[in-house]
Amino acid sequence: MSAVPTDALTGHSAADAERVDGITRPPLQRLIAYLDGPHADLKAAIRDELARPEYGYRYDLTRPEQCDLILERCRLLAQRRWGDALFPDAEGRSDVVSFLAALETIAISDPNLLIKFGLQFGLFGGAICYLGNREQHRRWLPQVADMRLIGCYAMTELGHGSDIRSVRTTARYDPASNSLTVDSADPSARKQFIGNAGRHARIAVVFAQLIVEDRPCGVFGVLVPIRDEAGNALPGIRIGDTGAKAGLLGIDNGWLEFDQVRVPAENLLDRYGTVSPEQGFRANTDDPTAATLRSMSGGRVAMALAALSGAKAGLTIAIRHAYRRRQFGHPEERRLIDYPVHRRRLLPRLAAVYAMDALGKHAMAQAGHSKHMASTDFEELAALVKASVTWNALDILRECREACGGQGYLAHNRVGTLRADLDPLTTLEGDNTLLFQLVAKSRLQALQARLRSGGMTTAIREAIRLRQDRLGLALSARFASSERIADPRFVLRLLRHREQALLWRAAGRIRTARAGRQEIDIQTPLLDFTRAAAERLTLEHFTRSLASADPSIRPALAELCALHAVSCLDQHLAWHLQTGLLTGRHAHAIEQAIDRLCRTIQANALVLVDAFAIPDPCLGAPIALNTTKETQPCRSTSKNC
Amino acid sequence: MSAVPTDALTGHSAADAERVDGITRPPLQRLIAYLDGPHADLKAAIRDELARPEYGYRYDLTRPEQCDLILERCRLLAQRRWGDALFPDAEGRSDVVSFLAALETIAISDPNLLIKFGLQFGLFGGAICYLGNREQHRRWLPQVADMRLIGCYAMTELGHGSDIRSVRTTARYDPASNSLTVDSADPSARKQFIGNAGRHARIAVVFAQLIVEDRPCGVFGVLVPIRDEAGNALPGIRIGDTGAKAGLLGIDNGWLEFDQVRVPAENLLDRYGTVSPEQGFRANTDDPTAATLRSMSGGRVAMALAALSGAKAGLTIAIRHAYRRRQFGHPEERRLIDYPVHRRRLLPRLAAVYAMDALGKHAMAQAGHSKHMASTDFEELAALVKASVTWNALDILRECREACGGQGYLAHNRVGTLRADLDPLTTLEGDNTLLFQLVAKSRLQALQARLRSGGMTTAIREAIRLRQDRLGLALSARFASSERIADPRFVLRLLRHREQALLWRAAGRIRTARAGRQEIDIQTPLLDFTRAAAERLTLEHFTRSLASADPSIRPALAELCALHAVSCLDQHLAWHLQTGLLTGRHAHAIEQAIDRLCRTIQANALVLVDAFAIPDPCLGAPIALNTTKETQPCRSTSKNC
Ligand SMILES: Cc1cc2nc3c(=O)[nH]c(=O)nc-3n(C[C@H](O)[C@H](O)[C@H](O)COP(=O)(O)OP(=O)(O)OC[C@H]3O[C@@H](n4cnc5c(N)ncnc54)[C@H](O)[C@@H]3O)c2cc1C
Ligand SMILES: Cc1cc2nc3c(=O)[nH]c(=O)nc-3n(C[C@H](O)[C@H](O)[C@H](O)COP(=O)(O)OP(=O)(O)OC[C@H]3O[C@@H](n4cnc5c(N)ncnc54)[C@H](O)[C@@H]3O)c2cc1C
Repeated sequence: MSAVPTDALTGHSAADAERVDGITRPPLQRLIAYLDGPHADLKAAIRDELARPEYGYRYDLTRPEQCDLILERCRLLAQRRWGDALFPDAEGRSDVVSFLAALETIAISDPNLLIKFGLQFGLFGGAICYLGNREQHRRWLPQVADMRLIGCYAMTELGHGSDIRSVRTTARYDPASNSLTVDSADPSARKQFIGNAGRHARIAVVFAQLIVEDRPCGVFGVLVPIRDEAGNALPGIRIGDTGAKAGLLGIDNGWLEFDQVRVPAENLLDRYGTVSPEQGFRANTDDPTAATLRSMSGGRVAMALAALSGAKAGLTIAIRHAYRRRQFGHPEERRLIDYPVHRRRLLPRLAAVYAMDALGKHAMAQAGHSKHMASTDFEELAALVKASVTWNALDILRECREACGGQGYLAHNRVGTLRADLDPLTTLEGDNTLLFQLVAKSRLQALQARLRSGGMTTAIREAIRLRQDRLGLALSARFASSERIADPRFVLRLLRHREQALLWRAAGRIRTARAGRQEIDIQTPLLDFTRAAAERLTLEHFTRSLASADPSIRPALAELCALHAVSCLDQHLAWHLQTGLLTGRHAHAIEQAIDRLCRTIQANALVLVDAFAIPDPCLGAPIALNTTKETQPCRSTSKNC
Repeated sequence: MSAVPTDALTGHSAADAERVDGITRPPLQRLIAYLDGPHADLKAAIRDELARPEYGYRYDLTRPEQCDLILERCRLLAQRRWGDALFPDAEGRSDVVSFLAALETIAISDPNLLIKFGLQFGLFGGAICYLGNREQHRRWLPQVADMRLIGCYAMTELGHGSDIRSVRTTARYDPASNSLTVDSADPSARKQFIGNAGRHARIAVVFAQLIVEDRPCGVFGVLVPIRDEAGNALPGIRIGDTGAKAGLLGIDNGWLEFDQVRVPAENLLDRYGTVSPEQGFRANTDDPTAATLRSMSGGRVAMALAALSGAKAGLTIAIRHAYRRRQFGHPEERRLIDYPVHRRRLLPRLAAVYAMDALGKHAMAQAGHSKHMASTDFEELAALVKASVTWNALDILRECREACGGQGYLAHNRVGTLRADLDPLTTLEGDNTLLFQLVAKSRLQALQARLRSGGMTTAIREAIRLRQDRLGLALSARFASSERIADPRFVLRLLRHREQALLWRAAGRIRTARAGRQEIDIQTPLLDFTRAAAERLTLEHFTRSLASADPSIRPALAELCALHAVSCLDQHLAWHLQTGLLTGRHAHAIEQAIDRLCRTIQANALVLVDAFAIPDPCLGAPIALNTTKETQPCRSTSKNC
């Protein structure tokens, strides 16, 4: 089973068929290379692995059966050593980018497997990596890597999910015994939703308020064994199953309660603060809790990449189906893709996926610079990328499911279950609404700091700049031809302006609120700002990545980029009209451009999804495969009515 | 267990507490009466029934177990005779409105039960009712009513879902034996996705091309026994299970293939055309296929009502959770509902549900006029209502699930599973995208007919009217105060104008397309039009129903109506700005109005969801109940950080 599909319609690889039906088709292999980026070999190897029959989708299993099956598959991946890419070698080097590329690739198949893998290596292993010391790395990571030791990441509590600073679990240091006592202070301190805890984990990284000499020192991770080799809960530990969920049947989420559980102090992940009988608590940073949370930002990038891979799978299925499925039309029934509204449902979303891919690559690269990982800049980027990509991806999967009609609801066609399984990504690893607020607040603080340090002149200078920007744009817009409206550089200028304007608006709103003249909503403007920032950043990275792409695929990418750009304008048209930068004439041109670009891109849509290079067994969906006869309805040759 | 909940926060019924905290609270019982409408007793009886422990939610069952459980529950409902309200009595009278009210009420609990009930009584029984003759009514309906005979509705085929006219199954009439031979002409003719066929149905209404003397006569329903008493497939019939789905675990969807299956001619549902050895085929209408499809429009209203009930359940859960759950905030943690953005996610959707409820009541009433049921007007209304309500309801459930955070993903909290189970409603009983097109086409045809008959003068008169309308509106808009923007009457005028303008635009687009100067998308303008029409109609019925509501609840409803109205403007702001009717000033006023109205409505949001009167056992969700301690996190009394 080759991991690289051949052209879905013609049966031969598009690489050797550059011109078909008068259309210049981008060579498939070049597109794949573009999307695979620097990790082509790794990704290809993982795809080959996932295409093996051992990973075939199974339906109608019970929850425990599905959980155990996913565990076995995760062990297979661990054997290939893809999990421990993250973990530091003897010299302390780790390769987070390869790890993210592995996660991204696993996510083209089963979200359950991806989450299982992410829990063990990314969250549990990652916590030890990023929050632990060398000694802990040496002691624990080898067992994590080969899955002798299965762990979980116990942060969320019943009473506190988003607000981690307020968790109620305590880890009290006793200098006499040099040990920590972990305790669930009250019922709201129960660790809740914890993946792997329901069944498989033998140990947990428990995030708790570290208390030394009765003084709270911040939220720290503590390694707490929870089950013995036979799988029984250890003394002082109560474990329960979270129960059935709206998806992720194969993930054993559970809850944990600790009744004065004692562990040696060496189990404290002490990167941001140490304890010792001699010195008590010594912080290594201003705010250990903030540093701890920031350190785990890489997981957010992982969730974005995972959702993106899910969207790629969904679009591959829906678009291939749209080329095969015929419905209505006389004398010959027409393919769904030939209906303008069907194109319009799918192709702008295809463009968005290519755009988000470029954004994802940027975030991965940033994660790779180890100094970045714990920086506020990276935290902000990861938050923005995670929230915007997961929301978009889930919307894409919804549309894909509907675009497949009834077939989209059958489990074996996978679009519906992909959505159900990826759905929690909008609220876990940081709830999207709150992540958008985090980004906005951080950008506002930066603005305020700039203004504070620069004083009045900076404020005036920035205001003037915004105004000039606007005037310049207004001038370009006035004389912009209808073609120009789909020029990503022009759109990018508009998006930049919108982002800046919304930042200032949010700042103004906060000032008004502080002045207290009236109770007003300052959260919504913050969200509006971050949405604008995300759109700008996405388009920016798409244009950049396009510029450096192989010339053979650049025209096809340029069309996608134009469609994505003009769709961004369309989505927030009201704002642009309000500012007066765009007018009814532009609105009309936008609509025409979308229609025109959808028609152009249709010619290449199949190769553009083939480029996601998802092996048939990973797609699973019979409606998306060449081989299935069942879903290939005979065309009616004569009409009866 | 009383079916009418007491006020969720205070523990006493809001009916006796009209002013709390300086807020005038609408009396709960009056709100319930308003929503229950003319079927208060029936609805209350069904709610009491559904609150019984026999209907308790069960998780982690296998698919067959869940299917059988749902069947048992459906039998309980049948015993109460709620299913056969639809069926004609000895005088041929039926009560479709009560039947729809029953369906709507069942849908506050389990979508699986609703679908099972709808399949047996609405689709299978309904087909016999609406397409069959008196003799058939007498023979079959009593067995359907008490579920001695379980049937299914076999319309969709593998090759033809939306395009029913092209189904390939044939029913060939043999005058000699006065019988029909039903046959799946080819693999694409397999009946697919058929609810009840997988396991429980013993008979099917099979929709097939009726062929008499080698001449196709249209699509007709034929009663075809498929299983014997022991559940084995009858000779010539192949039955299979559709397999796992992305939801609706308790519905046994299956496929059916017919190999020259002979049934007596009396099994033909012959309302729109009869067969006899003497006369061959005699049509009773121009286009029997169209009449057949039209007759089943009531099912679309049912699906809209069902989705709406699901949205009510979802909002009850999410809004109650928002009042209980506290997260962040210092010194005291704040309730989610106190966060402006959280309000803004939930309260406009609450307003939309009240608005759609009024629309639903209108559609129900129209269904009640038996002459309407098979009319194109009713077909159009049902299509519009079904598509717009199911899409909105699914969006509401998505938001509810996210607004509950991780809890929203647990099956027992039901928002996630409600969404998964109701999701297919967007594509079944008419795919929403196609239904929106159907409405637009029908309205365009009416316009064209008007223009044709009236000639040039009518065209000019209508164009002038649109223009005058615009000018009048422009004038009112210019002088409209910020308050005015949220006046539903003003908004309604804007929405009417938008609807008309979009209709003309669509007509113009079609003319351009016909002129053939360029290939253009005419489908998207059609969808835009229907969306506008649906919004106008919804707001119109909300304002009407408000006008006749009890004065004690009118202020609260008026606020909801205003919020809904202004949200409609906000959603299509770009259009209104483009026409120049609204400006940046209005946009600002819209935003402020939404913010203000959300704050006002918050005071009553709990009683507004209590008014949906969903008994606690039907809600299920522990996060939405008073009794559960587990989900009531203790408030942290001191901050550790
Ligand atoms: C399948 C699954 C797996 C999980 N796995 C793990 C795991 O392995 N380990 C782990 O530690 N956790 C895990 N979680 C928990 C997850 O991280 C939390 O659900 C998430 O952090 C959100 O917290 P919460 O559920 O308490 O939501 P809440 O914090 O209660 O938020 C609920 C809603 O309120 C809104 N809200 C909250 N505060 C504000 C505010 N200030 N302003 C505006 N709106 C606000 C949010 O936007 C959200 O919509 C998992 C969850 C799921 C569903
Ligand atoms: C859970 C479930 C239960 C069901 N129960 C029953 C049942 O009991 N009995 C029964 O008969 N059927 C049943 N169905 C089938 C259901 O009615 C069909 O799925 C539905 O009619 C759509 O048909 P399709 O799936 O073939 O979609 P298609 O017709 O293939 O449509 C697929 C997509 O193409 C788009 N499309 C199609 N034509 C056009 C066009 N001309 N222009 C633009 N876009 C177009 C549609 O918008 C849709 O998104 C059930 C389905 C499900 C999922």
